[in-house]
Amino acid sequence: MDKKGVSIAVIRRMPRYYRYLSELEKDGIGKISSKELADRMGLTASQVRQDFNCFGGFGQQGYGYNISLLKAKISEILGLDRGYTGVIVGVGHLGHALIMNFNFEERGVKIIAAFDIQKSLIGQSINGVEVFDTAGLESFVKGNNVDIVVLTLPRAAVRETAKNMAEAGVRGIWNFTSVDLGSIKDSTVVENVHFSDSIMTLSYLITK
Amino acid sequence: MDKKGVSIAVIRRMPRYYRYLSELEKDGIGKISSKELADRMGLTASQVRQDFNCFGGFGQQGYGYNISLLKAKISEILGLDRGYTGVIVGVGHLGHALIMNFNFEERGVKIIAAFDIQKSLIGQSINGVEVFDTAGLESFVKGNNVDIVVLTLPRAAVRETAKNMAEAGVRGIWNFTSVDLGSIKDSTVVENVHFSDSIMTLSYLITK
Repeated sequence: MDKKGVSIAVIRRMPRYYRYLSELEKDGIGKISSKELADRMGLTASQVRQDFNCFGGFGQQGYGYNISLLKAKISEILGLDRGYTGVIVGVGHLGHALIMNFNFEERGVKIIAAFDIQKSLIGQSINGVEVFDTAGLESFVKGNNVDIVVLTLPRAAVRETAKNMAEAGVRGIWNFTSVDLGSIKDSTVVENVHFSDSIMTLSYLITK
Repeated sequence: MDKKGVSIAVIRRMPRYYRYLSELEKDGIGKISSKELADRMGLTASQVRQDFNCFGGFGQQGYGYNISLLKAKISEILGLDRGYTGVIVGVGHLGHALIMNFNFEERGVKIIAAFDIQKSLIGQSINGVEVFDTAGLESFVKGNNVDIVVLTLPRAAVRETAKNMAEAGVRGIWNFTSVDLGSIKDSTVVENVHFSDSIMTLSYLITK
């Protein structure tokens, strides 16, 4: 599949399509037109068709999309079928919340370990995920070809950890800290969840 | 200040400027050129100048920006100086993590209460925030003119809670759930933190 030239705006809509299609599938709906899908998502039918055309298009004019097929296709585009593995670094409140509540497997990622420096946490099993000493993080990541590292650790240690993880061959960093990692290594992608930017945007939007 | 016609892309960069300027200020730096600021943020100097021009421009050609003044100006644009109040609905792992770790006040929001249906949580004080019974949420929000509601509750209760909060006059909903609220009421803004979309985007980006 050719991914070159697909804009980040289109890319960021793909997970939304995936979510909506999953809901439709759960509701037992088998087929949907670009117009209906667009209406539900607050887009236009032409935008939906254009988005899908970036990946070759998946529909038949005038027939509508088969939801299961479309969902499977988008799942493949998103790489949800690749069997990625991940580890969580930092088992504070947020790391703990992710391990307990977030359904990683539904998004194609298997969390195979967690790491912390806190002695009281090491050796514990949280929702089936064992917590190891951060001292062993690098060798674990190398030895297990870990694809994704989730950073939920305190600011001070973030930059060095990210750099080490990139050196160790990790392909993606899911960064929940407020540290901007920029581009650390060409072969490692950083995706940020910036709570702080999000609430400041909300503040802007409610301010007259 | 005229906010009309400012694109969402520009708006979403304002919190980033604010973060970078806060860092620079902490480092004791007093002045910065659009070029230097752009380099640090991975933007171009002309983009930085254009962004600021959306709000009237804050610099003097050839002199550079005074960091404290610029930061104060952006803080005002973002509404961080308005003294907004917020409540957290759902004190599970994530709600708990936010109350414990996230510095709301630094982003201009004072969390004045939390709500849950769990009897064992009601009456507790977490990091100085008291947990009340969700049964009293609506009257609390009305009585205290709450500006922002943070939704960290289970999926099933999200839509109804959001609707009630909008009816109760809340101006902003910070939605951490995977439920798409769409536009619930013209006077209420929804800002989403979609963990699920974020990790699927990361998965896309590391997939060849």
